[in-house]
Amino acid sequence: MGGYKNRILRVNLTERTLSEEPLSKDLIQDYIGGVGFGVKLLYDGLKPGIDPMGKENQLIFVAGPLAGTNAQAFGRWKVFFKSPLTGGYCKSSGGGHFAAELKFAGFDVIIIEGAADSPVYLWAHDGRYELRDATYLWGLDCDDTHTLIREELKDSRIRIACIGPAGERGVKYAGIFSDRRVAARGGGGTVMGAKNLKAIAVRGNERVDAADQETFRAAVREQVQVYKSHPTFAFFPEQGTQAPEFQNLLDSFPTRNFREGFLPQWEKIDGSEFTKLRVRNTACSSCMIHCGNITKIGTGRYSGAWSEGPEYESIWAFTGTIALPDIGLTIAADKLCDDLGLDTLSTGGSIGFAYELYERGIITKQDTGGLELTYGNGEPVLGLIRQIAYREGFGDLLAEGVREAARRIGKGAEQYAMHVKGLELAGYDPRAAKAHGLNMITANNGPDHSSGYASQEIFGVPIPREVDRFAVDGKGDLTKFNQDITAMLMTGIACGFTISNGELTPELYGKLVSAVTGVRDFADPAYLWQVGERIFNLERMFNVREGFGRKDDAFPARLTNEPLPAGSAAGQVFEEEILLADYYQARGWDSDGRPLPETLNRLGLSSVVADLSLQKR
Amino acid sequence: MGGYKNRILRVNLTERTLSEEPLSKDLIQDYIGGVGFGVKLLYDGLKPGIDPMGKENQLIFVAGPLAGTNAQAFGRWKVFFKSPLTGGYCKSSGGGHFAAELKFAGFDVIIIEGAADSPVYLWAHDGRYELRDATYLWGLDCDDTHTLIREELKDSRIRIACIGPAGERGVKYAGIFSDRRVAARGGGGTVMGAKNLKAIAVRGNERVDAADQETFRAAVREQVQVYKSHPTFAFFPEQGTQAPEFQNLLDSFPTRNFREGFLPQWEKIDGSEFTKLRVRNTACSSCMIHCGNITKIGTGRYSGAWSEGPEYESIWAFTGTIALPDIGLTIAADKLCDDLGLDTLSTGGSIGFAYELYERGIITKQDTGGLELTYGNGEPVLGLIRQIAYREGFGDLLAEGVREAARRIGKGAEQYAMHVKGLELAGYDPRAAKAHGLNMITANNGPDHSSGYASQEIFGVPIPREVDRFAVDGKGDLTKFNQDITAMLMTGIACGFTISNGELTPELYGKLVSAVTGVRDFADPAYLWQVGERIFNLERMFNVREGFGRKDDAFPARLTNEPLPAGSAAGQVFEEEILLADYYQARGWDSDGRPLPETLNRLGLSSVVADLSLQKR
Repeated sequence: MGGYKNRILRVNLTERTLSEEPLSKDLIQDYIGGVGFGVKLLYDGLKPGIDPMGKENQLIFVAGPLAGTNAQAFGRWKVFFKSPLTGGYCKSSGGGHFAAELKFAGFDVIIIEGAADSPVYLWAHDGRYELRDATYLWGLDCDDTHTLIREELKDSRIRIACIGPAGERGVKYAGIFSDRRVAARGGGGTVMGAKNLKAIAVRGNERVDAADQETFRAAVREQVQVYKSHPTFAFFPEQGTQAPEFQNLLDSFPTRNFREGFLPQWEKIDGSEFTKLRVRNTACSSCMIHCGNITKIGTGRYSGAWSEGPEYESIWAFTGTIALPDIGLTIAADKLCDDLGLDTLSTGGSIGFAYELYERGIITKQDTGGLELTYGNGEPVLGLIRQIAYREGFGDLLAEGVREAARRIGKGAEQYAMHVKGLELAGYDPRAAKAHGLNMITANNGPDHSSGYASQEIFGVPIPREVDRFAVDGKGDLTKFNQDITAMLMTGIACGFTISNGELTPELYGKLVSAVTGVRDFADPAYLWQVGERIFNLERMFNVREGFGRKDDAFPARLTNEPLPAGSAAGQVFEEEILLADYYQARGWDSDGRPLPETLNRLGLSSVVADLSLQKR
Repeated sequence: MGGYKNRILRVNLTERTLSEEPLSKDLIQDYIGGVGFGVKLLYDGLKPGIDPMGKENQLIFVAGPLAGTNAQAFGRWKVFFKSPLTGGYCKSSGGGHFAAELKFAGFDVIIIEGAADSPVYLWAHDGRYELRDATYLWGLDCDDTHTLIREELKDSRIRIACIGPAGERGVKYAGIFSDRRVAARGGGGTVMGAKNLKAIAVRGNERVDAADQETFRAAVREQVQVYKSHPTFAFFPEQGTQAPEFQNLLDSFPTRNFREGFLPQWEKIDGSEFTKLRVRNTACSSCMIHCGNITKIGTGRYSGAWSEGPEYESIWAFTGTIALPDIGLTIAADKLCDDLGLDTLSTGGSIGFAYELYERGIITKQDTGGLELTYGNGEPVLGLIRQIAYREGFGDLLAEGVREAARRIGKGAEQYAMHVKGLELAGYDPRAAKAHGLNMITANNGPDHSSGYASQEIFGVPIPREVDRFAVDGKGDLTKFNQDITAMLMTGIACGFTISNGELTPELYGKLVSAVTGVRDFADPAYLWQVGERIFNLERMFNVREGFGRKDDAFPARLTNEPLPAGSAAGQVFEEEILLADYYQARGWDSDGRPLPETLNRLGLSSVVADLSLQKR
């Protein structure tokens, strides 16, 4: 069988044992790879109710069946775990070259179990593997960790996924970093830190062969032709995701903690400004898109600051949140989060939350250690990021995420905590794009924008072309469509840009993944749609098993009760009850958001029907 | 001819022209290589009186004839220029892998002339060369510059020498960094910044062959045997230079700006403490000594701070200067200097100078921007280092070096500026070791400890074994001995540790360098001694030509008039007049410290006799 290395590396950190096992045939047949492997292995590997910070949690790193081949834009990796922010299911994705190198090293999947009693890192290379002492790496930032591991192992081409100080110190939204690409959301780095696992280093010379080489070559040629002629290919290498224009023109750019949907002078942080600061493009393994932009600012207060990106989400996280479009601060803050190992979205969201509390007098200078958190004042931001990462001063509270921080603060702070399921919101106002909002409120990670990006509302692509973003009707079906196709294509861990913009059709993906694996069923779009829906429902069942239901599919009251104040989306709220009811029906779920037994049976998930009666929360 | 690549790469940044030329036979015969090439090319290449920051200055990078071979501990490189701190001759040395890679790329020497009108870097590889745009690198720290160049050129094994923000901004004591090894002293990075040259990147696959391979192999075998059995080999891999013990036991550890020679609680920063924090050893190319220590602190205020080193000098620079033996601060300050591109010695010396002025009320909080520079207070140090590197606030003044800063401050500050010729002193009190002091006061760089390290006084090695460190008699001869043997062995750019501890004898060096080059004369110790003395005198003549004389061989009055207050060296001063007179006589120089014509003639330097009458200063 091609594509797969057919090896799972299982590492028990408590026992310090390492072993390998093959991929089961059923796993491949029913889940294909990528997110499919991740959710199935995590569901089976974890008992409900376990502590996300405890030894019973796992971290499952997965490379897809097309990683390491010359198929385009399949070079990303995913990591699966129970999230310390949400207490539920989490998948988090990173790019760069880690996935391909993991395959070259001989593995499809690494499962991390238990926790080490002192810092270690995993070194997997050419089918071999060992745990090594990482005491000397503990405390180092992500860049330095890469450098010193490569020096220690005397191979500058090793690829690494690691945590920074934030993950070590239990900041609830620490990410996992590989070069400057990051699996940021949900606290994967936090779990890694709790396990005393500083890094995973991989390197190898194995090839990834296709089962049907000729068909595969033809499919890749077709893919390259499709991508070349697609608008994405014109746009992303030029601008990447650095386009606050889109959300501001839609009045969907959350400003002042989601009180407004528009940031005055957003032009100062728009793509054309970043283009002026662009150093060069970067790309993941075997990707023609080259979406990555290294930007650097040469003048002003933040002269010399640079980062890879920032991506749209990170731009938003350090501008709209504090009502200040300062491009230099944005770049510096993005890089600092990368260095220290923080998710930019939750970091920016937590800072924006603090700004609103400060403005309302719920917290004062006494709480902030003297920082003046007034809108438009960017001065405290870099210091706050450091405080969060090191859990010092006021940062120690914000390091818990907005839900828990609000609970500790009291005094009505909870109404200003902009989260769903405990995860901070992304940079889109759900009131201004209802299917996009419906995805965020139902995404199994918490309000993850990329589990079912409603590009039909945001960009008018790909199909259906004409969608009224304010309309309520039909948004249940549309959201299900977006989520299921995403889950389907994430079995190959396709780049999200090729999903939400429509160039990677189920047909094209089917050609690629069936040719590489040799599994004929995978060429059938109907089969792929079923796998996608299966995956989404199994993710949902993970959360249901933890006690999640309708109550957890809930936006803060601001988004359902307070209309957007101005602009094209003025007067809009998120019609939560109506939209969710429509969505649950489209999904075949009950009114509490729990899959019906017949839905599970239809999707080949009868084995988890019994779990509907488990509720540990 | 072996050893040499026989290629000088000449780069004119003003014209953006690059060309190559062979090494002249006379240059090889008379100067061997390394420091010999550097001083001769610089002497001939520069007109006296030019502005060190102007286009007429040059930067000459040199790798020695043994770099890139398997001879041990010859992997260092040197850079030569007119110093912006002293206005005189300067050579500065770095380690790591740059020298060997420069040879592999096909070059012995790179001469940089002129200045670019926008930031560039030089890329030399496999005999080819080009200037590339470095606008995107301007403002980046040294680590990031390495990373991004390697990424741009898609070769992680490229070696780089670069500057950080300090060099770009004209801090007068900016260094040139290659990985974490640095040519720090005298402002080479400052000159590089003034030329808009961010970096030199080298990579290649050429071999460095010996002319007489069999003899060379035998000589290397002998060298390895000698080094293995030498005490250095037992000491340096264990402790590197992290040994403040030596200077404190001699009461020669300058404390509170050279008011005292002993730092209470120095045990907190001694080698045994650093050993506890050691991550691992590092080594330069083809070096069995492995002197480098990466240290990291895991607890306390500076938890997570790490650096390669710090070496003894840098330890002193951030402890004795501020009268605080805080090992964490020392490590953090050392790393910050490396990141930002600063010489630790001049940085620490400038900070120590500011502390004394503050204590005496010559400067106040109004001058320092609120910083309390009181002895024992380490809090301001990291901030001050950043201010210096970016020339912000009070740091802008300290960035000029103590001589110029004192001149601008006035109010008697000049008496507290601890420098010779404008270069800040190293971490040795000349009152406690007279030959060591005599070297520092006469070293052609300014008070460079490594141009003629008096290990006979400091360590009692190698010969003569019994030297009274307080005695005045015979110190002229001893200093000449130390300086000339150093200059001789630096024709191969030998590691200083192998010089000052005596394992690299002229005989052994002669075997190695004659076998690699095929020049028989180089096997003759008498010939080598003559070359060493020639080099030292030509360096001196560079300064004489600039107007230097007796007046510039002068310590601050504190060291000649104020006795050391306590300890084993209590009551000692540096007897400047007597010692210098003795030294000048030993050198064959006149009472103004100028080489006599007959001395120059004896050394084959009759071509520069006429320059004795030039005085442009």
